[in-house]
Amino acid sequence: MTLTRPGARDAAAHASGEPLVIALDAMGGDSAPGMVVAGAEIARQHHPDVQFLVFGDEERIRPLLKRRPRLSRVCTISHTTDRVTDDARPAVALRTQKQSSMRLAIDAVGAGDAQCVVSAGNTGALMAMAKFVLKTLPGIDRPAIASFFPTLRGETVMLDLGANLECRPEHLVQFAIMGSLFGKAVLGLVKPSVGVLNVGSEELKGNEVIKAAAAELRTMELPGTFHGFVEGDDIPAGTVDVVVTDGFTGNVALKTAEGTARLYTEWLRRTFKSSIVARIGYLFAHGAFQKLRKRSDPRRYNGAMFLGLGGICVKSHGGTDAKGFSHAIDVAVDLVKQGFNDKVKAELARFGDVINGGVPRRRGVLTG
Amino acid sequence: MTLTRPGARDAAAHASGEPLVIALDAMGGDSAPGMVVAGAEIARQHHPDVQFLVFGDEERIRPLLKRRPRLSRVCTISHTTDRVTDDARPAVALRTQKQSSMRLAIDAVGAGDAQCVVSAGNTGALMAMAKFVLKTLPGIDRPAIASFFPTLRGETVMLDLGANLECRPEHLVQFAIMGSLFGKAVLGLVKPSVGVLNVGSEELKGNEVIKAAAAELRTMELPGTFHGFVEGDDIPAGTVDVVVTDGFTGNVALKTAEGTARLYTEWLRRTFKSSIVARIGYLFAHGAFQKLRKRSDPRRYNGAMFLGLGGICVKSHGGTDAKGFSHAIDVAVDLVKQGFNDKVKAELARFGDVINGGVPRRRGVLTG
Repeated sequence: MTLTRPGARDAAAHASGEPLVIALDAMGGDSAPGMVVAGAEIARQHHPDVQFLVFGDEERIRPLLKRRPRLSRVCTISHTTDRVTDDARPAVALRTQKQSSMRLAIDAVGAGDAQCVVSAGNTGALMAMAKFVLKTLPGIDRPAIASFFPTLRGETVMLDLGANLECRPEHLVQFAIMGSLFGKAVLGLVKPSVGVLNVGSEELKGNEVIKAAAAELRTMELPGTFHGFVEGDDIPAGTVDVVVTDGFTGNVALKTAEGTARLYTEWLRRTFKSSIVARIGYLFAHGAFQKLRKRSDPRRYNGAMFLGLGGICVKSHGGTDAKGFSHAIDVAVDLVKQGFNDKVKAELARFGDVINGGVPRRRGVLTG
Repeated sequence: MTLTRPGARDAAAHASGEPLVIALDAMGGDSAPGMVVAGAEIARQHHPDVQFLVFGDEERIRPLLKRRPRLSRVCTISHTTDRVTDDARPAVALRTQKQSSMRLAIDAVGAGDAQCVVSAGNTGALMAMAKFVLKTLPGIDRPAIASFFPTLRGETVMLDLGANLECRPEHLVQFAIMGSLFGKAVLGLVKPSVGVLNVGSEELKGNEVIKAAAAELRTMELPGTFHGFVEGDDIPAGTVDVVVTDGFTGNVALKTAEGTARLYTEWLRRTFKSSIVARIGYLFAHGAFQKLRKRSDPRRYNGAMFLGLGGICVKSHGGTDAKGFSHAIDVAVDLVKQGFNDKVKAELARFGDVINGGVPRRRGVLTG
């Protein structure tokens, strides 16, 4: 089994020579700004060509950078005291917090001063602001949140993970297109397989929305192949490369998987502590367990991508640490270096008629 | 940590002396009827007072019983060759398969010949037939499928797991009432805590259905306490005793958790095989791992309860083995012995006005 991060892949798509500028919302996340700055320090070591625009409270950020002279040299602080809190309503934050660290970081991408933005702040506000500033790609009604899942076969991409709690069939179709383009552009798959999450794999199962989406996907020529319906256990099994679902179900599935992994880890810890003999066993198996821990480390999968926007925006878990945040930066860097958005735009142009219903089709269930 | 099955609890509620009769659909499940008969043999050893009515193909069941003389003495075979297949549409099975092993087993409960029915067959057909034959309890519009989840704190009950893919707020309210009554009657909790599954714990999160359900639950006096919203990772964390959700989300969450557990188990297996030293470690920790394996064994959690019906009906996983099926029988026996349905009926009478909207209330969002 190989678990490959996109970062491990060829990064030739990014024009070498010019620096890659990343806008950071320094004030988002439970342990911000300390975690953000420490995460940037780790990411800098992975990507010597990056520069950071750091948005937030200069008085708090400056001392953190002072202790990291190398990072300091590639950082530019843009001072602001306003920050979006976790309980802020997205629409209110969008209207009233135009000088917040989150919004200014997104504005930097909108103005072309940075190629991507990373924030561990309020997901809803980040999506609302990113959508307003960066706009959606032509043919995409609603951006989706996508992330990697570890599986028995490697990795699976799932979307949406919470941006769109209720979806119409055409939204799921758009997610399937974006997800398979992602599989091609970032994961390097020739024909990514796409499944729609359901309560059973039979065609007659499920609600009307996913049945209509699946019927549509069966008739169209996807960038990948349409596998049909998949169930919850198909996600960790790695049955398909791309799992498509609405944001409510995707969010619950993601968090249930994370929680189950934590439960198992805790059981394992207790198992090894349950007797002297088991403790001795742990000493022998320690090295192997370090590998297992690394493989199942949730920080490894931190960094949810907002797909379908006119700019690259990555959301980190709010509760993550520096290492997790650095992974979110890695994800953003990979998307930029792979030229993901340009590839998506080019491919979406091919699918424009399908997505927008511009060309009537006989068998389409959405275009009737 | 204690992981207590309901079977471990006081079984005084069932009048001792009279035998407990269980109707078995011998033809449901991937490995039926062999798995069903072998499962009954295991369950018989746990519950010496049970008798089985076995519905299915006598030619196939008879030889299986012949090899198990003790089981044979407490079994009565009712011959039928019709069986409900996994791909049968519930409505069609209900209309046309009145002589199927599944339907006849349910009929036995309806006629009072058995106190409960256990089947590993088609879930949708089982629910449709059980609802038709056994009816729903007064005050319950829709029965729900409930099951145990292992958690860091013990066990949590979750419902619905797939009977109702789309729910209105009042259905979720009814699930909350049934779930908390279950917590009281079967788990022996004084005030079970109830949470509604959502994408965030804040009141403003989620779709309109769950927001309306939560608003209603906040105003009413539940048999338990209403905790508010919970997220996917709260299920394995054991944040609440009862997790309420629609059948689509619940089914995906259940299967995602099962799949993640399998992923982790496989990783663990590979970890111990990764080096000679790790293999030696396994030899030392072997005993402790047997305990872990037992604790996380999905067969331990086999047996989904159909709550809200006028009779006790338990659904086993179709892919389970004899041990898993015996657990499903255990669950059914526990529900009977705890007098679950009588307790629910008594408590529902108290909540009748709330559920049915018979008494106008000022603050209710559902009764407007």
